[in-house]
Amino acid sequence: MEALLVYAHPEPQSFNAAMRDIAIETLQAQGHKVEVSDLYAMNFDPVAGRDDFTESLNPQVLNLSLEQRHAAAHGTLNAVIAQQLDALQRADLLVLQFPLWWFGMPAILKGWIDRVFLSGVVYGRSAQFERGKLRGKRALVCVTTGAPEASFQTDGINGDMNTLLMPLLRGVLGFTGMTVLPPFIGFGVPYIGPEQRTQMLQAYAHYLQHLDQLTPLPMPKLADHLDIPTGNDRPRAH
Amino acid sequence: MEALLVYAHPEPQSFNAAMRDIAIETLQAQGHKVEVSDLYAMNFDPVAGRDDFTESLNPQVLNLSLEQRHAAAHGTLNAVIAQQLDALQRADLLVLQFPLWWFGMPAILKGWIDRVFLSGVVYGRSAQFERGKLRGKRALVCVTTGAPEASFQTDGINGDMNTLLMPLLRGVLGFTGMTVLPPFIGFGVPYIGPEQRTQMLQAYAHYLQHLDQLTPLPMPKLADHLDIPTGNDRPRAH
Repeated sequence: MEALLVYAHPEPQSFNAAMRDIAIETLQAQGHKVEVSDLYAMNFDPVAGRDDFTESLNPQVLNLSLEQRHAAAHGTLNAVIAQQLDALQRADLLVLQFPLWWFGMPAILKGWIDRVFLSGVVYGRSAQFERGKLRGKRALVCVTTGAPEASFQTDGINGDMNTLLMPLLRGVLGFTGMTVLPPFIGFGVPYIGPEQRTQMLQAYAHYLQHLDQLTPLPMPKLADHLDIPTGNDRPRAH
Repeated sequence: MEALLVYAHPEPQSFNAAMRDIAIETLQAQGHKVEVSDLYAMNFDPVAGRDDFTESLNPQVLNLSLEQRHAAAHGTLNAVIAQQLDALQRADLLVLQFPLWWFGMPAILKGWIDRVFLSGVVYGRSAQFERGKLRGKRALVCVTTGAPEASFQTDGINGDMNTLLMPLLRGVLGFTGMTVLPPFIGFGVPYIGPEQRTQMLQAYAHYLQHLDQLTPLPMPKLADHLDIPTGNDRPRAH
């Protein structure tokens, strides 16, 4: 198995870095190959736009979806994006490692998705969920939070964590056809001591050693929604 | 009233640009002052890190929250962030205008929040929701989608739109104490014709003319959650 671990934290001494390292170690010990995209270390630019492409399908008006399809078909993707897309397509397992910032991914990781998850390549109007182009791959998300677990319950002040992560778990990972495993959450990390941190890392290693025993998250099926009109094939910019 | 409109789209001829313009025009016609942060035009860098500050509280280990509090207190914020924070603090109304990319904000806008919504300045452990530091301000979100409205229902393939926007509406805007108005959503924009686009712009203008008649979204109250332990005052990096 080949894994792509995308890591989004600016501090090499952070707990996220420790979680990244335990994942590499644990997956390698199981005989897997692990590739790491360390977005901060790569100085990854997360801003999607004209720079994603080395030529323009339409130099007058930018429609990212159409430019993405054109560039993927013609080999005119920005080299960094092409390399990240290649790593994603080679991977059997995608691991996203990040701290929860404002109830979502740090911008550098959101932009990795904006730029690398190309229209026509990882999804299309008739290629979503069970027909998505990344089907057959597994995905897991490992997130740390500042606030404690009790705050992330349905009746907690921050609300249910799986609901907060729905845009990513279902909207990105499930949508493209990946088998999405239940996320691993490190709650309240800034406020726990060294022993609890060690325990959390051990729990994460155990989780990674038993991925086959996890029940994937339920996802909708495109086949159940084919009655919804989606318009013509040449959408305009929105 | 003073409004800050934060706009996140790379294409000046996009429908998002038209929505931005109708918002400026409509709010100004009501006598309001409107400031615009056009993030793409500003070449805004959305990646939070050491560059957010002109000096380091701790040059060895980066803890963004602690550095943010330090920089805000000592006037050592990056000039762009200081200017955006100032605009946010002056505003009575915050308008976020963006296309839904991967079920959330474009990275450039997510990073505007990551960098400008400073710990200790817009929120704190005892300054959330009704005690948040942006209380008294109103916020509204205007989003366009590629997929049609029917796909954004609870039983639709993409799920309920208010749930997808929960990390932003409740997690960012409500959390900091703002009064959050129901979002204005332009569904399926790439697939509608010029007449429908005009109607959508008119509906948005009407919405902006009647903000006082909108019922704000319900939010949790910090006072109902004070029993949850949040740890000590000097959190470590996570």
